[in-house]
Amino acid sequence: MASVLITGIEPFDGEHINPSWEVVRQLNGVYIANTLVVARQLPCEFGHALDKLYQAIDELEPTLVICVGQAGGRAEVSIERVAININDARIPDNQGYQPIDVPIIEQGPAAYFSTLPIKALVQGLRDDGIPASVSQTAGTYVCNHIMYGLLHHLKKQGSPARGGFIHIPYLPEQAVNHPGAPSMSASTLVKAMEKIIAVSITTLKDLVVSAGATH
Amino acid sequence: MASVLITGIEPFDGEHINPSWEVVRQLNGVYIANTLVVARQLPCEFGHALDKLYQAIDELEPTLVICVGQAGGRAEVSIERVAININDARIPDNQGYQPIDVPIIEQGPAAYFSTLPIKALVQGLRDDGIPASVSQTAGTYVCNHIMYGLLHHLKKQGSPARGGFIHIPYLPEQAVNHPGAPSMSASTLVKAMEKIIAVSITTLKDLVVSAGATH
Amino acid sequence: MASVLITGIEPFDGEHINPSWEVVRQLNGVYIANTLVVARQLPCEFGHALDKLYQAIDELEPTLVICVGQAGGRAEVSIERVAININDARIPDNQGYQPIDVPIIEQGPAAYFSTLPIKALVQGLRDDGIPASVSQTAGTYVCNHIMYGLLHHLKKQGSPARGGFIHIPYLPEQAVNHPGAPSMSASTLVKAMEKIIAVSITTLKDLVVSAGATH
Amino acid sequence: MASVLITGIEPFDGEHINPSWEVVRQLNGVYIANTLVVARQLPCEFGHALDKLYQAIDELEPTLVICVGQAGGRAEVSIERVAININDARIPDNQGYQPIDVPIIEQGPAAYFSTLPIKALVQGLRDDGIPASVSQTAGTYVCNHIMYGLLHHLKKQGSPARGGFIHIPYLPEQAVNHPGAPSMSASTLVKAMEKIIAVSITTLKDLVVSAGATH
Repeated sequence: MASVLITGIEPFDGEHINPSWEVVRQLNGVYIANTLVVARQLPCEFGHALDKLYQAIDELEPTLVICVGQAGGRAEVSIERVAININDARIPDNQGYQPIDVPIIEQGPAAYFSTLPIKALVQGLRDDGIPASVSQTAGTYVCNHIMYGLLHHLKKQGSPARGGFIHIPYLPEQAVNHPGAPSMSASTLVKAMEKIIAVSITTLKDLVVSAGATH
Repeated sequence: MASVLITGIEPFDGEHINPSWEVVRQLNGVYIANTLVVARQLPCEFGHALDKLYQAIDELEPTLVICVGQAGGRAEVSIERVAININDARIPDNQGYQPIDVPIIEQGPAAYFSTLPIKALVQGLRDDGIPASVSQTAGTYVCNHIMYGLLHHLKKQGSPARGGFIHIPYLPEQAVNHPGAPSMSASTLVKAMEKIIAVSITTLKDLVVSAGATH
Repeated sequence: MASVLITGIEPFDGEHINPSWEVVRQLNGVYIANTLVVARQLPCEFGHALDKLYQAIDELEPTLVICVGQAGGRAEVSIERVAININDARIPDNQGYQPIDVPIIEQGPAAYFSTLPIKALVQGLRDDGIPASVSQTAGTYVCNHIMYGLLHHLKKQGSPARGGFIHIPYLPEQAVNHPGAPSMSASTLVKAMEKIIAVSITTLKDLVVSAGATH
Repeated sequence: MASVLITGIEPFDGEHINPSWEVVRQLNGVYIANTLVVARQLPCEFGHALDKLYQAIDELEPTLVICVGQAGGRAEVSIERVAININDARIPDNQGYQPIDVPIIEQGPAAYFSTLPIKALVQGLRDDGIPASVSQTAGTYVCNHIMYGLLHHLKKQGSPARGGFIHIPYLPEQAVNHPGAPSMSASTLVKAMEKIIAVSITTLKDLVVSAGATH
C-alpha cells in the first residue's frame, strides 16, 4: 500500500523541543489522498540521521519522503530547493561531532535538487493562508545533510519515490526565549504539512512560476 | 458592573482585514476575572477614531481600556510603553487625511505613558508561551493617536480607569501577501488578549524588571 | 562668538570604541557656517553624562547642541524625534548602575521633542548620498537620558539654543564582531555630521514632509 | 605574465549604478602580489554575461577570476560558497529575458563550489576591520549564473585558474533610495577587493574554520 514517510528531528542547540517533530508526529497514521502517512524522528546527528532515514525507507518503501527541520529565525514555511554536498557545522551535533567542510558523500555530486513540486507547494500553502516561500539554501548542518542524503539514496537505489525538505519556524513557546524571533503555531504547521503532503502526492509536474532570488 | 473596553481598528493600507478587530471581536461579551469584556471597532481615521473611543468610554465607564492595532512586520505581541503628541502620517488615513507634524492635542503634554502593567504583561504572556515584548514607540499614525487620545481623555476626566495600547503582528493570511513577514495565528492572539486583560485587571503594581532598549 | 557643541559617548556594552566619539572628535575646532564646532566626550553613565553636558553648555553657551550616540544594529544615520522621561536600562551603565523605570527628571514632562529640523536633516543627508531616517525612539538607556536631559536643561534655562540627538551605526571594525550587523564608515559619518551641523545652523523652520511610522 | 581577472556587472533592477562595477573598475591595471589586475564589466544578461566572461578569460588567461555582484539588502561582503545549475529569475534581465527553472548548462553538474579560499577570505577581511561572511547561496539570477558558468568553464577547459564570486552591499548613495537598507562605502569595498585578491593569490589551502549555517 502506498505510503508517505515524513520525518522530524530531535531538539538541538539548547532547545527542549524541535518543532519539526512536534508537528510531524501529529500526522503519524493519518491518510491523505488515500496514502498512509508514517512519521519518524531522526537524531540531530550527522551520519546516524541518515542511517535511521535509510532504514525507514527500506522498511516502508514510501512513494514520497518529506523531511522537516527547524529554521529558527525564519518567518515562513520554507520549501528547500537544493541540498549541497558539504557538512560545515557552526555548532556540534547532538553527539558532539562538528565536521568542517567535509563532503556528505565522497565523490557524490555537488548538489541535488528537490524532487517535490516546490512552486506548487508554495502556491498551495498561500492559497490556504499559510505564509510560505522557496528557500535557496538548506544551510550546511544536519538538515542539509539529511536532504542531500535522502536524494542521493533515492537516486542510487533507482527509486521512483520523490523527496525533499521543509524548514519551519520556531513554535511560539520557543520564540519566547529568542526575543524578536518570528514563530508559527503548531496548528498552522500541521495544516501546512497536510497541504504539503496532499499537493506533493497529486502534483507530478511543477508550476512554472518564479520563486527565485537575485542573490 | 465592572467592564473592560477593548478596541480594534478597521483595515488600512490596502489590507482586507485588521488583525486587531479580528481578534478583539471574539472576546466581546465574555467575562474575564469577573469583568465583562466589551469590544468595539474604531475607524482608521484621525479624530473620528477618538470620537468613537470617547463615546464608548462615556457609555460603558470601563475600569480598563485596552486598544489594539496592527503592526505589520513585528513578530511579537508588543506592549506599548508610551504615546507621543504628534501625528505624522506616512500614508493617508481611511478618510484620505494625512497630517504631518501636527499635535494630537494642542497644548497637550508631549507624551503619556501606558498605565497598564507593561512588564507584568510581557512576563505573563511569555509564561504562557506567547512571544511578547515592550515596545518603546507606537509610531506616529492612527495607533499612536488612539493611545495618546485615550490616555489624555482618562487623565482629563480624572478617571481611575487604566489604559494602554497593544500592537499585534499580521495574521498568517495577511503575511501571505508580504513575503518574509512574520505572523501570529488568531487563536494565539485571542489567548494573548485574554491573558493581557486578566493580568491587567489583577496587577495594580507593575513588576520591576528591565524591558528597555539601548536605542 | 557663536559655537556648536557636539558630543560623543564613551564605549559601552563591551565595545572598545564608540563610533559617536570617533566621529565627533574629528570635528573639534573646525568652523561650519562661520560657527566654531567644539566636541566633548560624555561618560556612558546615567547622571554623570548630564553633569558633564551641562558644564560644557554653561562654559560654551553654544547656539546649537547635537549629541551623538551608537545604535548598534541600525543601518542609517538616525535623527531622533523625541526623548522620553524614563530610564530603563537593559544593561548596567559604565559605573554599574542599572535603573529600571525611574524618571530622568522627577515631575519633568513625559517627553521632549527635538528642536533640530529633523526632516530637513534627513533630506540634506539623502541629497548627499548618505542613508538617513527619522527615528521615533531613542531607547530608554543613556542616549535617551542625554537627549531628554539636554532638552530639559535648555528649556529650564530659557536658552534659545536648539538641540537634539543623532544615533549612528557601528563602524565597520565593530561590525566585524557582530556578524550580519550593518555598519557605516567613519569618513561617511564625518561628512554626515558636517551636513547635520550646517543644515541645523541654517534651517530655522523645518520641512513639512512625512517621516512617520505606522507603528 | 600572471594576471587576475575581476568583473563587475551592469546596473539592474532600476538602479543607476552597480556597486560591483563602481568598485572593481578602480582596480583595473593595479598590481597586487606581483599580479596584474584586469577589470571587466559584464552585462546583466543571462548568456551574454558568460559570453563576455569567457572571451576575457580566453584573452587574458588569468590565474585567478573573481566575479563580483550587488546584493542589495546584505550588510557584509559575502563570499559565495556555491553556485547551482538553475536560472530562476524573479525579475527580467536587462534584455527582458526571464528564465524560470531552466538549467544554466544542460547536463551540467547540479552545482559547483567556489575554488577560492572562502574561509581565509572572511578571516582576512575581518582582520582588516571589514565585515564579511560566507554565504551559502548566490541566488538564482545573473550572479549565480555567472558564478556557475565561470566554474564550469574553468573545469571544462582543464584550467588551473581558480575562481569564485563575491556579493557586496549597496553603496550609500543607493541605500538612500531603499530606506532601512544597509550599505558599505566604495573606499571600504575597494580595500576589501584588494584584500580578497591578495589572500586568494597567496592562499592555496583554505583554513579549516566553520562558516556554516544551521539552515
